[in-house]
Amino acid sequence: MINLDAMLSDNAKNMKKSAIRELLKLTSRPDIISFAGGLPAPETFPVADLKEAADIVFDKHSAKALQYGTTEGDVDLKAEIIKFEARQGVTLKDENLLIVSGSQQALDMVPKLFINPGEYVIAGRPSYLGALNAIQAYQGKVLGIPFTPEMDGFDMDVLARSYSRLVQGGGKAKYIYVIPDFQNPAGLCWSLEKRKALLKFAYDHDLFILEDSPYREIRFLGEHVSSIYQLDQHGENRGIVINLKTFSKILAPGTRTGWIMASEAIINKLVVAKQAMDLCSGVFTQKWLAEYMKSGKIYEQIKQTCENYRVKRNFMVEMLEKHMPKRYDVKWTKPEGGLFLWISLPKYISTDELLLKAIEQEKVAFVAGSGFYFDEPEHNAMRINFSYSSTELIEDGVKRLARIITKEIETYEAGHRAKTLPEGM
Amino acid sequence: MINLDAMLSDNAKNMKKSAIRELLKLTSRPDIISFAGGLPAPETFPVADLKEAADIVFDKHSAKALQYGTTEGDVDLKAEIIKFEARQGVTLKDENLLIVSGSQQALDMVPKLFINPGEYVIAGRPSYLGALNAIQAYQGKVLGIPFTPEMDGFDMDVLARSYSRLVQGGGKAKYIYVIPDFQNPAGLCWSLEKRKALLKFAYDHDLFILEDSPYREIRFLGEHVSSIYQLDQHGENRGIVINLKTFSKILAPGTRTGWIMASEAIINKLVVAKQAMDLCSGVFTQKWLAEYMKSGKIYEQIKQTCENYRVKRNFMVEMLEKHMPKRYDVKWTKPEGGLFLWISLPKYISTDELLLKAIEQEKVAFVAGSGFYFDEPEHNAMRINFSYSSTELIEDGVKRLARIITKEIETYEAGHRAKTLPEGM
Repeated sequence: MINLDAMLSDNAKNMKKSAIRELLKLTSRPDIISFAGGLPAPETFPVADLKEAADIVFDKHSAKALQYGTTEGDVDLKAEIIKFEARQGVTLKDENLLIVSGSQQALDMVPKLFINPGEYVIAGRPSYLGALNAIQAYQGKVLGIPFTPEMDGFDMDVLARSYSRLVQGGGKAKYIYVIPDFQNPAGLCWSLEKRKALLKFAYDHDLFILEDSPYREIRFLGEHVSSIYQLDQHGENRGIVINLKTFSKILAPGTRTGWIMASEAIINKLVVAKQAMDLCSGVFTQKWLAEYMKSGKIYEQIKQTCENYRVKRNFMVEMLEKHMPKRYDVKWTKPEGGLFLWISLPKYISTDELLLKAIEQEKVAFVAGSGFYFDEPEHNAMRINFSYSSTELIEDGVKRLARIITKEIETYEAGHRAKTLPEGM
Repeated sequence: MINLDAMLSDNAKNMKKSAIRELLKLTSRPDIISFAGGLPAPETFPVADLKEAADIVFDKHSAKALQYGTTEGDVDLKAEIIKFEARQGVTLKDENLLIVSGSQQALDMVPKLFINPGEYVIAGRPSYLGALNAIQAYQGKVLGIPFTPEMDGFDMDVLARSYSRLVQGGGKAKYIYVIPDFQNPAGLCWSLEKRKALLKFAYDHDLFILEDSPYREIRFLGEHVSSIYQLDQHGENRGIVINLKTFSKILAPGTRTGWIMASEAIINKLVVAKQAMDLCSGVFTQKWLAEYMKSGKIYEQIKQTCENYRVKRNFMVEMLEKHMPKRYDVKWTKPEGGLFLWISLPKYISTDELLLKAIEQEKVAFVAGSGFYFDEPEHNAMRINFSYSSTELIEDGVKRLARIITKEIETYEAGHRAKTLPEGM
């Protein structure tokens, strides 16, 4: 009989099940309040407008929408995206754009294009685990760079030292993976200075930058900061930045459609890769999105989504301040956009273990922070999502979370006191 | 400045632009009659029924349909596919099924799962080039096996000899890729005996079989033959066959949705691979297809599509018989299903060169046969599609094709006669 495991490729042996997606299954139980997923709020989906757009496709464009399409993507959708990006100050030609089946497909295509087994991607500690898993599936490695205490981006000194050590040791890095806008998982936003510094670092060391911007439009506080793609475009314009966007966060994940912006040379290579991966992304969906974009409603849609999330984020921060233990070593980010915040706990707490207790004892779920590290994970943090739950569930969930964290700290400290007290007392 | 080519992975250096997809762009000019694409007939798309199904999704399931879904696929769609396959005698559990973004995604996932650089897939000469390109993108190699003169499947003697030579030379093969039903490009259908022989060969040599069945339901003549997946299931049930199906040919390619049937162990591995590739396939589209399938209209839809293609195939064969040069070395397959037939020409004709003349001089296009070979291509054949064009265009296109072929043969023979005549005459 055939031994499946023995037949697997080295790529496959290196693939990791996504802890988050496994967890999502567990937390779909209705009695659990889950802050684990990265799900947009379903009440933001503009169902009637989307139906109207789909009707137009059925009535006017069915022969094209139901047929095969080009690998590059639907021309109508690309034209709408070019207008959408132009309003943000990004200049694009058709040749700079590739439609993909969600950002995750792009996160899979880029390491396939660049990474040989053992080669490196430079990425934040922590980083989006879907990107890390895609890199691992090509046997790539990750050089992890921590953020500064100010959370304004990479610690550039550590980056310089780590990279230099890597190169001296014979290691080869191909690109830097960053999520400068409301980073998943920590929700932090890079300063303009840090973005410029990273671009300069990439220029100086002949590295590409993969800038993942799923949350860029979901800013509900503070001021817009130029993307690294824009900084390159309006500066030396070397075309080394690959920028990813998706309809998942600004409209609806069920469309599974995103786009890649890059130099024509890179897009051409990605098109060849995509031909062998899925020929083209969903054609009906692309026509549908094109019709929706033509209606011009996307801008009001994004505004309303941001307003919804601002309320929820503020409420979650308020609830955390009210219910969480008041200690210097229990803290959370206060993101100006995106879907997540990041809670840091005392060093002695492992959120991997805490998660099981939280689900069992309090029926509340989060993502343990360790999943967002390629190697040598930190264990004392968690990612929680504020976009999906109602304010009622946020209040109830944060109370539950605060209870289990308080209990964990008290248990540890009681044990610690007992241990440090003289024997016999 | 960065040198893009120098930064590419070995995988990327091995990627080939799909000749067909490049050609499709060229042949989209309205003055060209193209038999090149593999496009279904747009008049078969059941637009009103599909709109009705989409309306149900908007009205009843929008919150789920517009949200993220599971990697495994929508449960409703899977339930409908299980019923659909049961009517064909295939027994499936939910765990045997994975929804993918068209068969091409599956053709990409399987080599990713099994093939290390330099390892082999066994495949027909000729074979579907999208599958060959996907294998190459992981630096896999192909052991090409010719078909018998009866066109009833692989020449099993050649398979045995070639495989034994490969193993003796230290080569490692992981799976056999076949399209037993109306194979792309040649349109031929494997006999039951040949399917059984291939399954036995795979059993004997511990190989998986990747059975690609996009055209299986598109049979318009003759009798249904059991799939290799079924032969394994109803025989020793070793679970070594991975069977691919798609909605592209039985309904509409614009849905970009297909499914993989395999053992639970293989599906589990493919799910992990897919997590890193695109998280999940289009959720709205899956719900939409589920609603359409629930209507039960797919069976009548397939029947009407087959009837449409039977008429077109018969008409194309009739036109070929009427207009093509009547010679022993000009012949074509007469498929009982699928979308294509395969024309063989005299050995001295290169269809790669003929194609350019056909487009320029006669404004008719086909796919040169050489694209369907991994290595050492044959050059004297072409694939032509009968599903897409109207009968008017089929008649006109075959006339044009016959003219350019006749001219090519006459030119060669005139030159040949001239050369063989004594000098000076």
